[in-house]
Amino acid sequence: MKYEFTKRMSNVKASAIREILKATADPDMISFAGGNPAADAFPTDAIEKISADILKNDPISVLQYGITEGDKGLIEAATKFFNRHEKVFGLGDKMLITSGSQQIMEFAAKCLCNEGDVVVCENPSFLGALNAFKSLGAILRGVEYKEGQLDLEALEKALQAQPKPKFIYLIPNFQNPTGMTMSFEVRQQVLALAKQYEVLILEDNPYGDLRFEGTAIPSIKSLDQDGFVIYAASLSKIIAPGMRIACCIGPTEIVNKFTVAKQASDVHSNLWAQKVMARYLTEYDMDEHIAVIQKIYKDKCNLMLQEMEKHFHKDVHYTKPTGGMFIWVTLPKHVNMQEFVKKALAQNVAVVPGHAFLDDDNKECHSFRMNFSTPTNEKIIEGIRLLGELTFQMI
Amino acid sequence: MKYEFTKRMSNVKASAIREILKATADPDMISFAGGNPAADAFPTDAIEKISADILKNDPISVLQYGITEGDKGLIEAATKFFNRHEKVFGLGDKMLITSGSQQIMEFAAKCLCNEGDVVVCENPSFLGALNAFKSLGAILRGVEYKEGQLDLEALEKALQAQPKPKFIYLIPNFQNPTGMTMSFEVRQQVLALAKQYEVLILEDNPYGDLRFEGTAIPSIKSLDQDGFVIYAASLSKIIAPGMRIACCIGPTEIVNKFTVAKQASDVHSNLWAQKVMARYLTEYDMDEHIAVIQKIYKDKCNLMLQEMEKHFHKDVHYTKPTGGMFIWVTLPKHVNMQEFVKKALAQNVAVVPGHAFLDDDNKECHSFRMNFSTPTNEKIIEGIRLLGELTFQMI
Repeated sequence: MKYEFTKRMSNVKASAIREILKATADPDMISFAGGNPAADAFPTDAIEKISADILKNDPISVLQYGITEGDKGLIEAATKFFNRHEKVFGLGDKMLITSGSQQIMEFAAKCLCNEGDVVVCENPSFLGALNAFKSLGAILRGVEYKEGQLDLEALEKALQAQPKPKFIYLIPNFQNPTGMTMSFEVRQQVLALAKQYEVLILEDNPYGDLRFEGTAIPSIKSLDQDGFVIYAASLSKIIAPGMRIACCIGPTEIVNKFTVAKQASDVHSNLWAQKVMARYLTEYDMDEHIAVIQKIYKDKCNLMLQEMEKHFHKDVHYTKPTGGMFIWVTLPKHVNMQEFVKKALAQNVAVVPGHAFLDDDNKECHSFRMNFSTPTNEKIIEGIRLLGELTFQMI
Repeated sequence: MKYEFTKRMSNVKASAIREILKATADPDMISFAGGNPAADAFPTDAIEKISADILKNDPISVLQYGITEGDKGLIEAATKFFNRHEKVFGLGDKMLITSGSQQIMEFAAKCLCNEGDVVVCENPSFLGALNAFKSLGAILRGVEYKEGQLDLEALEKALQAQPKPKFIYLIPNFQNPTGMTMSFEVRQQVLALAKQYEVLILEDNPYGDLRFEGTAIPSIKSLDQDGFVIYAASLSKIIAPGMRIACCIGPTEIVNKFTVAKQASDVHSNLWAQKVMARYLTEYDMDEHIAVIQKIYKDKCNLMLQEMEKHFHKDVHYTKPTGGMFIWVTLPKHVNMQEFVKKALAQNVAVVPGHAFLDDDNKECHSFRMNFSTPTNEKIIEGIRLLGELTFQMI
């Protein structure tokens, strides 16, 4: 039989990253392509202990059906945790526990975008979110950067253009893929523009706690009192991604709609993960745990940047993140980036070609993404040396 | 700010069952409204042991990101398990591990139905699946029953009508909400009609192993060699629903498309649950475990039917399931079913009004759903006595 698939799904390709990651299953490969947390930062002992206790004393609570909204204990613990430094959970807000932040992106598009509706995004932006929007028939309208910050004039034009966008998708902290952070002033102005044009903001903040330099900048969510921001907070990068647990915080009316969407999507998130996370957030010192991750990431990022400084051709430009997991590398215009990535892969070094992160992946792109959280120090040193040689060969 | 939601989501209401279940949080309530497995049938000791072993010896494998397709060990174990009595995994098929069967319903609509496309379903059918289809803009076209079986003439008309439907959604074993089972002859004819009109079948089989009387009837999937059937197999009812693990088996091209949808939806299912399930299926005797559940359900179902026989007015009709979890009760036409359900709730007995399960919940309906797997024997006896009195008051 000949199968026919939907228009919306025809816009979504299998992730370019995933295809590259298949190549990196080879243990000899030096992969800067992933976005995995460093495995040595997982709180394995604590999770083992908490899990044993729950499964011994209250197994039914994790095995029976749960409620769609999420485990009450986790909602309480996560609200306290994500509100500890700034007020992301405000008056009139509600929390929904989701199966990873990815699900929040999907619910946003499912509940807010009819087919053909527009989502404004940074250009480049997180591939997984862009795919979620496209998979529900939304059209992407990218806004470029200018001198290291989102171009506010371009943003205003994107908000004025027809059809009127339904929301602006932003990753203000240590953005994926660029590693860049939005300044306080730009955050304020983005929020002001959103209010002026009455467009919602979907603020994705998976990396906010992974700052290893400088001081935290308030989230856009914390600056808003008028119900313009939906906030995606995740435990994937600071506890463990295999758990698939994130928290959506937003205006009650929106979160209630997302809850109906979740009921139709996967009923509720895995209960063991929710119960274990609730106990971990309550009984352990999260800030101490996060400090350990920050230290690991700072060292790895500094090592990678230092090796790049040493080995890369001077015409190669790259971001210098103060947190997160990614560095965004831009080759001179006359170098074919996709050719560069292919040659790197032939030498067993994997990076992600940048066009995959654009609103339209047919656009010209001279950048690629590198991850520093996953590879060992040895692989960072060896991989950067090889990439460095390639920059001199190709420039 | 005034929020505007999508057309597709405006068709989906918060589940009627869920609203009733809120009322049943009261411990004095006698709830026949749920669809929960009996908690005393969960293999708690085995899960505790397996989990401890995994978290001690290989914690990273459940904490790091996994692949979208699902854990290899689980795919292998589940293929062997679901293929043990009949060939549901055929030549040219592939398996995708999903976060519950609910997700398979969503992917089917997301990948196969453009907005306004039609899904043919039994009338009544499982509310959660109908909501998943509607949440992606699909239109339901219900086919009624005739003398205890799906009306094949009506099905053929539904397949001929324009617009041409994209798939037929069926629960052939111990259907939710009716508890009815499709005969072998009807399964063969349904498949023949699907082939004749080139319409896919989505066969949902969460209860197939919960047969406590008679012999198993081959699934429609096992009768098909031509790629017409997508099969949803779940571990929720035979191991534990809080795990949220199901398996989609179908033609490779379709399952590959669902995999792209899953990547955009929740990246992958919870890894701990996948690894624990893989080990449980491999190391424990599932058929012995299932026999325990069958015994519990048989006793509860028989008790409920016997009490209904004793206490219900003779003009009340109901199905006599040979498996599953549900009995479908039909009141005489002159009795207002919704009034009956309200009066029952006022007496602390909860059942689910039947119109919630129809393709159009504004249609006239004189039936309600009762669940026998969750309540204790005492509650079954007391609840049926109260409902019985009500039948005599209202008829």
